[in-house]
Amino acid sequence: MQLLDDLMLFTPPPPASTPPAPRAALVTLVGAGPGDPELLTVKAANALRRASLVLYDHLVSPAVLALMAEGADRVYVGKESSNHSLSQKTIIELMLRYARAGRPLLRLKGGDGYIFGRGGEEAEALAEAGVPFEVIPGLSAAQGAAANVGIPLTHRDHAATLVFATGHGREGGDPELDWAALARPRQTLVIYMGVGTLARSCARLVAHGLPADTPAAIVERATLPGERCLTGTLASLPELARAEQVKPPALVIIGQVVSLQPLLARASARHPAP
Amino acid sequence: MQLLDDLMLFTPPPPASTPPAPRAALVTLVGAGPGDPELLTVKAANALRRASLVLYDHLVSPAVLALMAEGADRVYVGKESSNHSLSQKTIIELMLRYARAGRPLLRLKGGDGYIFGRGGEEAEALAEAGVPFEVIPGLSAAQGAAANVGIPLTHRDHAATLVFATGHGREGGDPELDWAALARPRQTLVIYMGVGTLARSCARLVAHGLPADTPAAIVERATLPGERCLTGTLASLPELARAEQVKPPALVIIGQVVSLQPLLARASARHPAP
Repeated sequence: MQLLDDLMLFTPPPPASTPPAPRAALVTLVGAGPGDPELLTVKAANALRRASLVLYDHLVSPAVLALMAEGADRVYVGKESSNHSLSQKTIIELMLRYARAGRPLLRLKGGDGYIFGRGGEEAEALAEAGVPFEVIPGLSAAQGAAANVGIPLTHRDHAATLVFATGHGREGGDPELDWAALARPRQTLVIYMGVGTLARSCARLVAHGLPADTPAAIVERATLPGERCLTGTLASLPELARAEQVKPPALVIIGQVVSLQPLLARASARHPAP
Repeated sequence: MQLLDDLMLFTPPPPASTPPAPRAALVTLVGAGPGDPELLTVKAANALRRASLVLYDHLVSPAVLALMAEGADRVYVGKESSNHSLSQKTIIELMLRYARAGRPLLRLKGGDGYIFGRGGEEAEALAEAGVPFEVIPGLSAAQGAAANVGIPLTHRDHAATLVFATGHGREGGDPELDWAALARPRQTLVIYMGVGTLARSCARLVAHGLPADTPAAIVERATLPGERCLTGTLASLPELARAEQVKPPALVIIGQVVSLQPLLARASARHPAP
């Protein structure tokens, strides 16, 4: 575990001469929301300002990290994207080491840690190890995107259910999704991390019965500088996203609610409130 | 529209001698989150402190309203639960009247206005009337419940998709839901406002193929004083909820992720951080 030792050199736990903590220190699992620091919860922003040690992911925005106190230690743990499973195991091991050494830490994840944030796995590992933890939820990216670009996620006329799915499979391949259940009318489908698999996802939804002219949008960098929203249909969106060179982070929203976007975007007052 | 006139008497728009506003005033649609005021976003909390006029629903907690400035006007618009459609129409009419009279207003809804909050309908009406608006998202009740009681909404071992549905139909009756799509393995299903229809919902999910021993939880008053979580299975939860006299607001969480709840709840540090 040379990597762990190297990481801990930067933010060392108390020296061995310190009496061992009677119990492990608290781990606070915090959802950082979609990116705009104003979209953190009050509780998350306060916890971040108070934290002395923060372990953060690659989806956490610089503007959110800027809330940390001067002198607080930060450890970036989002690097090994080519090998998610090792990375996740290493992150958990690092959290356990700090907590057992008596260092309270804040684990910061983009979005909501309990919605595609793997916070469940981390909470489970902490619980099994007897390490106390607290969970502070965050807005999921879809909520920030919906509010900003003008796509209500449910609507009595258009969608009675809302489904969140991920475009990433377990080993970085295509996800094993139940496309028959996703391809339903009167439903809004949000696909997280869906850029790479967009064309295949749209084709599968059509193959499972959704009309090819079902409205669909892709939102790039939701709530961050450079946010973009492209709208089309299941048939047209993949080519549009390719032509416009949409890159992660981006999420895909599919369903009749997307048809409201042009009207709501025109009227939306994205200017300072009076 | 006697009701509207009566409501506006309490918080009158500027008198007729005031020159008409060159354009309508800004409407800010704000999600108040699950109830705990610390779970408001920073942006929502700031908007609420600045607002001079707030129209709020019955699901907004007193602790959230307490953030309002002294002297700000508040109008309760959540009363007519026996006649949702009239109420919604009246609320929209009231918002339009204030905005056209030049009074900026904050429309405050429990949870996230774009997830079963009917914020989409209000945004649509504002847009069609040419009234400028801004949307500030809020945590949905499921996110507050999940974090507090220890139920990750997704988890690689248990759930690849997350579905939000509502237990209320259009006219207060049973919802027209696609039960075949909801009764799927490796999926977490959240049913909002699901107390009244709990027994029928569980029976339908079993009839459509979910095992009767699928873990299921009901969370009453998520993040509010008196929060409770009861866990069981699709077979046992309805009787348990009846015996324990669970009342709205409550939401139902169904799926294998619920099996983590006892472990996570035991280890969860619901005590002040060190």
